[in-house]
Amino acid sequence: MGKTLVYPKRDSNTVNRYKHRATYDLGAIHSIINSSQVLHVSFNPGPSDPFPAILPMIGQMGSFDYPSAGIDEPLECYLHGYVSSRIMNLARASEGEGLPICVAASKVDGLILSLTPNSHSYNYRSAILHGYATLVTDEAEKLWAMELVTNSVLSDRWRHSRVPPDKAEMSSTVILKVKVVDGSGKIRDGGVSDEKKDKDNQEVTDRVWTGVVPVWETFGEPIPDPLNKVEAVPEYISSYIASQNERNRSYAASAIGIPLPKEEQH
Amino acid sequence: MGKTLVYPKRDSNTVNRYKHRATYDLGAIHSIINSSQVLHVSFNPGPSDPFPAILPMIGQMGSFDYPSAGIDEPLECYLHGYVSSRIMNLARASEGEGLPICVAASKVDGLILSLTPNSHSYNYRSAILHGYATLVTDEAEKLWAMELVTNSVLSDRWRHSRVPPDKAEMSSTVILKVKVVDGSGKIRDGGVSDEKKDKDNQEVTDRVWTGVVPVWETFGEPIPDPLNKVEAVPEYISSYIASQNERNRSYAASAIGIPLPKEEQH
Repeated sequence: MGKTLVYPKRDSNTVNRYKHRATYDLGAIHSIINSSQVLHVSFNPGPSDPFPAILPMIGQMGSFDYPSAGIDEPLECYLHGYVSSRIMNLARASEGEGLPICVAASKVDGLILSLTPNSHSYNYRSAILHGYATLVTDEAEKLWAMELVTNSVLSDRWRHSRVPPDKAEMSSTVILKVKVVDGSGKIRDGGVSDEKKDKDNQEVTDRVWTGVVPVWETFGEPIPDPLNKVEAVPEYISSYIASQNERNRSYAASAIGIPLPKEEQH
Repeated sequence: MGKTLVYPKRDSNTVNRYKHRATYDLGAIHSIINSSQVLHVSFNPGPSDPFPAILPMIGQMGSFDYPSAGIDEPLECYLHGYVSSRIMNLARASEGEGLPICVAASKVDGLILSLTPNSHSYNYRSAILHGYATLVTDEAEKLWAMELVTNSVLSDRWRHSRVPPDKAEMSSTVILKVKVVDGSGKIRDGGVSDEKKDKDNQEVTDRVWTGVVPVWETFGEPIPDPLNKVEAVPEYISSYIASQNERNRSYAASAIGIPLPKEEQH
């Protein structure tokens, strides 16, 4: 009770700049990962290529062995991909613990418009994980992870679609499981922060508008496919959209510390 | 006239999956980078660390030598950072051409809800660049790049804030210049795409709603700072917000291929 699990601080994940914005809290880091539609996954293609690669992927934290594990407990990161993609081939060929990768997620929650360019910033949430990626070979775990990832695109979508996947679909899909070694997050919220020298300079304060422009992701009205045969948009879709929009919008507001106006311009 | 510049296809940037979605066009790739509020930058911290690192950074494409260069012409990528951050120290210490890095940007434009989990997808735009990063040491180029990056947060903000930066501000800010070696982009648009076996299965089509949920980034009403002394929100801010909102929303719609309803739910 009351114990917060944190990732160990190692050289590779320790935040050195704006330390007060850093978090090593499993719950905070996993939440940022899970609420991101796209994760950026970095890996090294091999000795002949000097550049690390980055792949945008869909993924989600979860525990197959302890499905009831909370967001603030130790979890693996499951990434969805295509069977012959480069990262999958590298993970398949990797020896030992797996392919060393970095998973990153970032969200902008507001533009911080302060007196000087130097004090400009974003309200944001970002997280990274380091870990070893291996291919999920157990069929039950793979199916479980495919459901986990599909439902991260839209809550409860899996059981409302044509499942289970057939044999060809199962074999063309690969799930990477990342055993997390460390992680860290960084959260910036609040308003404008300027230096005394500028706040005391009336020529500047009379001229420069300061404040925050909230930013959030909006889901629009679902547009049915020409071949769609289901008359109304199902409730699980419309309620997901409504709740995401409310959640995103109110996070951007709460990050500033003041409520947003009820009627918002587009 | 009419010539489209493309990045060379090399092993490291060649798209193997969904080739028809791939682009090597400088204009398309640079536009995705420039319209992203956050770039994910990957680099290798050193031989003692097996994991590549990813840092969220603010950046922008531009050419100091040819400031009038178009978005579809050869450009460098300028990244903004703090003087003592790890990537800056590595770039400072790097020998030869600079620190090998990968820059990535991704945007989700819609959820593709099709009949089976396998055919689910996003409408999205993503781009990566590979290149060598070095620190900008020329003061004029650094100042120019700081203006470029600040104005990428909000158009025309630089000259409406307290500039130029003073000596301390100039020395605490570091600008990385990425000489681009190759790049690629991937764009998915359109609607649902299902296989014949599922489209012909009436049990499935009668039950599963298919279509697209458009997704875009919304900028809210600017919230003035308690210390702000400028009465009205300046026109360059409100018009930027309005034009971004219109651009983001209409891109999500045009990606599907049909106009969105005029009044949109939140």
